Amino acid sequence: MIVIKVGGGKALNHRAIVQDVARLWQMGKQVVLVHGGAALTNEIAEQLGHPPQFVTSVSGYVSRRTDRRSLEIFEMVYCGLMNKRFVELFQGAGVNAVGLSGLDGRLWQGKRKDRIKIVREDGRRMVLRDDYTGRVEKVNADLLRELLAQGYLPVLTPPAISYAGEAINVDGDRAAAQTAVALAAEALLILSDVPGLLRSFPDESSLIHHITAAQVGDFMAFAQGRMKKKVMGAAEAVQAGVKRVIFADGRGETPVQDALAGKGTVID
Amino acid sequence: MIVIKVGGGKALNHRAIVQDVARLWQMGKQVVLVHGGAALTNEIAEQLGHPPQFVTSVSGYVSRRTDRRSLEIFEMVYCGLMNKRFVELFQGAGVNAVGLSGLDGRLWQGKRKDRIKIVREDGRRMVLRDDYTGRVEKVNADLLRELLAQGYLPVLTPPAISYAGEAINVDGDRAAAQTAVALAAEALLILSDVPGLLRSFPDESSLIHHITAAQVGDFMAFAQGRMKKKVMGAAEAVQAGVKRVIFADGRGETPVQDALAGKGTVID
Repeated sequence: MIVIKVGGGKALNHRAIVQDVARLWQMGKQVVLVHGGAALTNEIAEQLGHPPQFVTSVSGYVSRRTDRRSLEIFEMVYCGLMNKRFVELFQGAGVNAVGLSGLDGRLWQGKRKDRIKIVREDGRRMVLRDDYTGRVEKVNADLLRELLAQGYLPVLTPPAISYAGEAINVDGDRAAAQTAVALAAEALLILSDVPGLLRSFPDESSLIHHITAAQVGDFMAFAQGRMKKKVMGAAEAVQAGVKRVIFADGRGETPVQDALAGKGTVID
Repeated sequence: MIVIKVGGGKALNHRAIVQDVARLWQMGKQVVLVHGGAALTNEIAEQLGHPPQFVTSVSGYVSRRTDRRSLEIFEMVYCGLMNKRFVELFQGAGVNAVGLSGLDGRLWQGKRKDRIKIVREDGRRMVLRDDYTGRVEKVNADLLRELLAQGYLPVLTPPAISYAGEAINVDGDRAAAQTAVALAAEALLILSDVPGLLRSFPDESSLIHHITAAQVGDFMAFAQGRMKKKVMGAAEAVQAGVKRVIFADGRGETPVQDALAGKGTVID
């Protein structure tokens, strides 16, 4: 069982990723795909006159400001456009995919953050109370196992669902990590538009090739921006028993094959 | 087992429909919900600078012009915004819903029309070849039965999938009818923003209360615009063994209860 997270950057080669996964699937390997959609969400949000906003938490993490209107646009792009594009690509490649959000079957459940402390651009702190965000705490692994047993490839995307039944925006990398843990996956691949974790971002020649599970916390220092949550997810996954986490490049012609061959940053 | 189709008009009371369905579900009745999203799709398509177009076939049916860009917008609204809104409403009402499009698990399969003969506004005929439309011919009833058996309420929406694996826009009413047939449902409810089939549209006092299964073809003459496909779907359903089809008003406070009590146009 492999969990593959495909980032939401525009440069990722979705068709190549699907072809690679289809080959694995047809060899009998079970796969769960998790995808993002940030870049397209930003574009569509601009077009709809509700431009994206990002907030920085007091602990330094950047995340999408998710008011109700943003959540709807997020769902349109992640659950509508992107999820069905992946499902259609898989169906075209002969793989019977089923696309689900974290809402469906309470697949990804967690607590909605009822207040978020952020740092404004002027450096002052404030508290947001109308944000629909949270973090995945429980995965409905039974539903995924059932689908896999029936021959369906699950294609998963945020949002998740709060215990009270509200849609919540969650980080897709950490959701993928929780999913890999819940399914006791042998590997978690995190494909994005960089070759892996870079010692000096954005210099691609500074790629870190290998990190041991015990060291992963120390490498948080090298993670910039969105890479922080990827490293955090990787740390959670390897500490909870996922054997290998691989950060790899999703832009090539055989991205999944390359990642499984160890091209990228391997954490084990 | 009841299949309920909720139309895409803006006046429909989604929250009331979900509350009604949740009550049935909690009494142990199995339900599959199918929804549309036409009105919101038109709005969002306008906002995104790709206004909706409708074409009239040579046999007089009006349908949405579905080029690739329209299909993407359609998926955003039907599979993203509307489907996840229904799933979230159900989750909030304590019902573990799973939202799927016809692409997922090849739930609704059919032939893509490779050419559509239409009548232009100037009365001339022409053939469209880049349209992504078709009609549901096969329903993956196994997937629906499996979900129902595990306690999940399926929430279904177009598009469907062609035999070649392409997304195709299909009529939601007829897809719901095919689903009711495949599941041998006892009833198919078709909720829209009119009280039922009207003898003289739009005069709501001209509601036709009852039609026998044998007569349904004769009543096509009273169907205007989008109602034509609803009546066609109803005819297909009752002729294939669904015991009752009810056209009813989706705008009230207890629309499903009212429909099951026979308020609307009952075909049996």
